[in-house]
Amino acid sequence: MSGTERSAGVTVQVRTRDGSYEVIVERGVLRELPRLVNERVRAERFAVISDDNVAPTHGRAVMEAGVDAGCDMALFTFPAGEASKSRKSWSVLTDELLDAGFGRDSCVIAVGGGVTTDLAGFVAATFLRGVPVVQVPTSYLAMIDASVGGKTGVDVRAGKNLVGAFHPPRLVVADPEVLVTLSLAERAQGLVEAFKHGAILDSAYFASLEDRVVDLLAAEPSASAPAVARSVELKAAVVSEDEFEGGYRQILNFGHTLGHALEAASDYELGHGSAVALGMLLEARLGERLGVTEPGTFARLRGPLEALLGPIDGASVDPEAAATYLRTDKKVRGGQPRVVLLRRLGEVDPGEGWSHEVPQEALVEALAAGLEGS
Amino acid sequence: MSGTERSAGVTVQVRTRDGSYEVIVERGVLRELPRLVNERVRAERFAVISDDNVAPTHGRAVMEAGVDAGCDMALFTFPAGEASKSRKSWSVLTDELLDAGFGRDSCVIAVGGGVTTDLAGFVAATFLRGVPVVQVPTSYLAMIDASVGGKTGVDVRAGKNLVGAFHPPRLVVADPEVLVTLSLAERAQGLVEAFKHGAILDSAYFASLEDRVVDLLAAEPSASAPAVARSVELKAAVVSEDEFEGGYRQILNFGHTLGHALEAASDYELGHGSAVALGMLLEARLGERLGVTEPGTFARLRGPLEALLGPIDGASVDPEAAATYLRTDKKVRGGQPRVVLLRRLGEVDPGEGWSHEVPQEALVEALAAGLEGS
Repeated sequence: MSGTERSAGVTVQVRTRDGSYEVIVERGVLRELPRLVNERVRAERFAVISDDNVAPTHGRAVMEAGVDAGCDMALFTFPAGEASKSRKSWSVLTDELLDAGFGRDSCVIAVGGGVTTDLAGFVAATFLRGVPVVQVPTSYLAMIDASVGGKTGVDVRAGKNLVGAFHPPRLVVADPEVLVTLSLAERAQGLVEAFKHGAILDSAYFASLEDRVVDLLAAEPSASAPAVARSVELKAAVVSEDEFEGGYRQILNFGHTLGHALEAASDYELGHGSAVALGMLLEARLGERLGVTEPGTFARLRGPLEALLGPIDGASVDPEAAATYLRTDKKVRGGQPRVVLLRRLGEVDPGEGWSHEVPQEALVEALAAGLEGS
Repeated sequence: MSGTERSAGVTVQVRTRDGSYEVIVERGVLRELPRLVNERVRAERFAVISDDNVAPTHGRAVMEAGVDAGCDMALFTFPAGEASKSRKSWSVLTDELLDAGFGRDSCVIAVGGGVTTDLAGFVAATFLRGVPVVQVPTSYLAMIDASVGGKTGVDVRAGKNLVGAFHPPRLVVADPEVLVTLSLAERAQGLVEAFKHGAILDSAYFASLEDRVVDLLAAEPSASAPAVARSVELKAAVVSEDEFEGGYRQILNFGHTLGHALEAASDYELGHGSAVALGMLLEARLGERLGVTEPGTFARLRGPLEALLGPIDGASVDPEAAATYLRTDKKVRGGQPRVVLLRRLGEVDPGEGWSHEVPQEALVEALAAGLEGS
């Protein structure tokens, strides 16, 4: 992984078992997409996949630019929303591509937020046993997190992201200019992952995000472009080290063990970012109580996260429901939950394999206590 | 790829991008399965998947041997038949595993024929973004072909095997003794792929199969064990060379361009083996007519294939329907069908990238002519 300056952006190289791919973060780069795709992907036909919110704007723009450049490109749409991250939508899109005559010489271009990059990525991963995918994230969350690392998949009855595949993209193109089309709430939710990157890997980055939280929420490109680029660099370094979540990659789960439980317990009423922010705070306080995390880290995290999201108290979540979720978490290995704990801001405690086995009771207590008395 | 003798069998190493796996072909080896799995797979829980024909016999035997050896193992069943190679069955099995609490520390053990190895393999490929699979093929077809090479997947409305993933097994265990439980027709259909391996790679092997065709059909272990072992060696060499069907692996498609069209045109009334046998004969004759294949090859193939399957005339297939399928084949690259042509028995003509672009009209004519006048 290395970051090199472009005219007005940053290109980050992500290593995979099969080679590597580039993540290009650059203002206005969306207009260069046809050239970039043609340079990097040998395909005869391109299927642009967007949800029905993004399709009329960015989805259509990508397709039209492609067609203007002489590409054989068609647009496929699915209903916006997490409910579309399903085996059903995956089946429908797959059949639509087949009915339209797409074959092995095809490439999928995913244009949208995290639902789209995950869903379209899984379509590509399984279409004729795998065709290339180009990820064009249009939200903070997708730029910072979902489009880098090769995770694709859908939700099922038993939980989120339980069915999927590792399918690294051939190219990721992130244009910070499109972030202005997001709602304020979407921006805030997505930026939580940027603060997480700072919290686990780079305290100076964390501080720089804190300094510019208002501009970041406004999607001011002078703030958003370097933030997206730095988060991509940090995440790329992690997934280049450990593509399949065998060890080091787990550090990206900071805030997520409890965050996922809180999100599920709220029946996904709580936004992913809010849930992870609350999870980060609870896991920081747990770490302090266990003597693993430097005292004061919890308080250090809380300020900027509340600047981003407003007051965080977790009062809306039933701790019992979250505890029940934790007890039945399908991803748990050997029955004991594991939690990523910070050593201090900007550094994860190595623990055993970059996480700590924490007794379920301690986690349930941490949930039940909430943020009271902090 | 190398074959080394075991006590009473052969172990073949297959290279993959991530390392390698072993295919063990040995009489009675099924009884050693728990030990072999424990040596090679680090998993806490094992899901044995079989269809409801195989489950009461081999499926149950594998599970009980595992439980006796102290493994946490459970048996999951689906209705026998090609109709189960579907997204629906894949969803049901996935949900059953999740409901039973299987997590990332799980391993799938597929026990059965080609439908089972493909379907259970795809469950494993996509379960929590991939868990290990051990393939325990119980039919000739699955031992010789389906369980080696990492192809997994299901059929969809538009065609067979159009959705899936490359997911190499962690281990393949083939016990020729179980072949006696197959019907004569199943044995005959599966053995076609063995003759194909001889036809494309090893004329001496082809001759040895021809010599023992009666014993092979009887599943006499002194004939079946070395045949399965040799076919596995030959296929392993090919897929070690080209895991993802980029080039050399295409030679395994000999007989399959026309075979698939015939199979689809018959609405899958024609068995896969019969369709491939007819495809091999038609493609051999096409090769002779194009001056690519040594004259006499067609006749050389026909004798043993008819000894296996009875008279082959293709009269039951509508050539127009097969031609229509060819014209809409979803796997076709850039619109032109490609066919693998022999140079002579035991050797594929390199063509361009191991196949020849043949005008659709020539293929349609070959189909329409059938085997008349040969």
